[in-house]
Amino acid sequence: MDIYFDNSSTTKPYRKVIEEVATAMEEYFGNPSSLHKIGMKAERKLTEARDFLGKSINASKEEIYFTSGGSEANNLIIKGLVKPGHHVITTVFEHHSVLMTYKELEKIGVKVTYLDVNRDGKISLDELKEVICKDTVLVSIMHVNNEIGTIQHIEEIGSIIKEKSSRAKFHVDAVQSYGKLNINVKKMNIDMLSISGHKIHGPKGIGFCYIKKGIVLNSLINGGSQEGGFRGGTQNVPAIIGLHKAAEITFINQEENFNYVKNLKQYMIEKLQEIDDLRINSPLREDFTPYILNVSFIGVRAEVLLHLLEDKDIFVATGSACTSKTSASSGSYVIRALGLEKKEIESAIRFSFSRFNTKEEVDEVVEVLKGSLNFLRRVKK
Amino acid sequence: MDIYFDNSSTTKPYRKVIEEVATAMEEYFGNPSSLHKIGMKAERKLTEARDFLGKSINASKEEIYFTSGGSEANNLIIKGLVKPGHHVITTVFEHHSVLMTYKELEKIGVKVTYLDVNRDGKISLDELKEVICKDTVLVSIMHVNNEIGTIQHIEEIGSIIKEKSSRAKFHVDAVQSYGKLNINVKKMNIDMLSISGHKIHGPKGIGFCYIKKGIVLNSLINGGSQEGGFRGGTQNVPAIIGLHKAAEITFINQEENFNYVKNLKQYMIEKLQEIDDLRINSPLREDFTPYILNVSFIGVRAEVLLHLLEDKDIFVATGSACTSKTSASSGSYVIRALGLEKKEIESAIRFSFSRFNTKEEVDEVVEVLKGSLNFLRRVKK
Ligand SMILES: Cc1ncc(COP(=O)(O)O)c(C=O)c1O
Ligand SMILES: Cc1ncc(COP(=O)(O)O)c(C=O)c1O
Repeated sequence: MDIYFDNSSTTKPYRKVIEEVATAMEEYFGNPSSLHKIGMKAERKLTEARDFLGKSINASKEEIYFTSGGSEANNLIIKGLVKPGHHVITTVFEHHSVLMTYKELEKIGVKVTYLDVNRDGKISLDELKEVICKDTVLVSIMHVNNEIGTIQHIEEIGSIIKEKSSRAKFHVDAVQSYGKLNINVKKMNIDMLSISGHKIHGPKGIGFCYIKKGIVLNSLINGGSQEGGFRGGTQNVPAIIGLHKAAEITFINQEENFNYVKNLKQYMIEKLQEIDDLRINSPLREDFTPYILNVSFIGVRAEVLLHLLEDKDIFVATGSACTSKTSASSGSYVIRALGLEKKEIESAIRFSFSRFNTKEEVDEVVEVLKGSLNFLRRVKK
Repeated sequence: MDIYFDNSSTTKPYRKVIEEVATAMEEYFGNPSSLHKIGMKAERKLTEARDFLGKSINASKEEIYFTSGGSEANNLIIKGLVKPGHHVITTVFEHHSVLMTYKELEKIGVKVTYLDVNRDGKISLDELKEVICKDTVLVSIMHVNNEIGTIQHIEEIGSIIKEKSSRAKFHVDAVQSYGKLNINVKKMNIDMLSISGHKIHGPKGIGFCYIKKGIVLNSLINGGSQEGGFRGGTQNVPAIIGLHKAAEITFINQEENFNYVKNLKQYMIEKLQEIDDLRINSPLREDFTPYILNVSFIGVRAEVLLHLLEDKDIFVATGSACTSKTSASSGSYVIRALGLEKKEIESAIRFSFSRFNTKEEVDEVVEVLKGSLNFLRRVKK
């Protein structure tokens, strides 16, 4: 039996989500922009989804815009707002869909401040206060980091931004926190937020962004007047219905899942005591998500360990899937950003959980780890 | 029973496509960028799809890049290539995902030549020859127009471009022709091509572009190194598998479907003889797709007629779905571009077929049209 500990990379859709998508492809195949009933029937489903998803973050349905996923949502938000000459702030360890977008914008004269993170992946609020200036139009800070699991103080960051500037907008990549931690865009002073369906057992190829009423963005995809004119293209109705269903199931169980996974992480950390020479990079603490456990197994290369685990049908990651091919050779840029030692960087493995994982799986994984590490460390000598 | 004559707007997915998508959501849920078997199993499916789709237009699998649909494909191609100071050529009646993208680029100093079309929707090849200049980097001309159904001389246009310029690339929006007319990117000298899944009974939210080997584009969606670095974001594996299946079914039946639909169009045109005062805007000719029949019913407003038909469960369009809300009031920009009279513009209805439509449906539609037109024309007097 496969043991899938790579849920931050992507999740298996809920059975009910698959059923909804299949039914919707048959029943709601119409184009929501069509003037006739078949189109309007599809359009109504979009409105229902917007309403539910809006409420899930304390926003209104008019503030929800569907995209093809988290990466597009981040690109739309950033490229839609930022112009040459503007100043923006982000962190050194954002997801590549934020980081690479800023790297691109630097080429056309956007000034970017990259906030450092400490060994726990936290930014310094004092530094943030210092760097906000009158030209700052956007601050992009992720809620939960996808490799190390650090939770930023989003609410405090939101107040700081609003205190220091009436101009700067606050953009939060919530791809790894949505459905796992509470998000309240009003209380947290979030102006724009990005979400992806496939991280919450929903369909791939669908996500949404929250854009606070009043904010006007340039389209990333120009075309028809779909999504309030912000995003051209025939809407992906079945995937939106599937995302709606995934969010419904996720939110009903949010707290239960959270506690379940927290127990699992605690259990795994305890079990890992049986192994020498490792560093828990994301301990069980308030400021780390329980869904991610990142561990360095000193003296082994993460990629080699990953493949030994894979041979036993255990699936983990060395970093973000998007950058897996480069991080495999030079270590993940996220883990490097923490300022760990080289031997900790190159041996970091991410275990990421869902509520479908079990303690029995943890037992099995730790047993296999022991064997593999014994083998690898012996070979090295 | 519903009569769906709006297949250019969107199509109902094949049963087999729905089944494939549902199975894939279960079986191939992995992230293709992951280093382990579950990811690689998904990645292999993408390669199979790329291979098939590439062959379908005489391209190689390395030249196929998945997007979220036709609109994104057009935006990626255009924005990825064109820079301020460049000159580009397009037509006045492209789909909005091309036209609005160029309107946007004009704001940053791109010079755009919009080629006029004649009453049949054809561009002038002489005019094209004249306007290509040394600054021309891109020529975007759609294969089949989505409202009027005109087929451009893509092969001739391709030769002209290559003859006149070694720099200008040829971009073809083939959303309405793919799976209906033959496309051979080499023979037609096409450098870039865009396709959408939901127009060929495939899933929504998926499409692809062909980008000729050697051409380098800036990403529209920055992020991970997916799609050869051209498009960040976790790939939509189930939709890609569904698109592959839809293309397979479509290509096996391409010729048979074409002849079937051609017969249907011919039959409907004959039947329409029984109605006075109409103009067939897309006659049965070599240079119009059989899949689209656009007709002006002089003296009635298209939107009113659309709703009367809808009351009898007959579904048609007044223009492109993307712009349906504006075209309903002022007439479609495509039909206006043909230089028809006002009364012909505001009364234009698009019937668009699939191989699942029947002559019995045509009979029914023409009967209902007669009744509705009698009523509307009497009311007007
Ligand atoms: C934090 C974060 N942001 C953005 C993304 C991109 O989401 P998507 O894969 O839907 O484009 C991911 C995952 O890939 C992520 O973990
Ligand atoms: C000619 C043409 N190009 C592009 C598109 C856009 O495709 P999509 O809806 O997949 O974004 C359409 C249909 O909407 C179309 O008819």
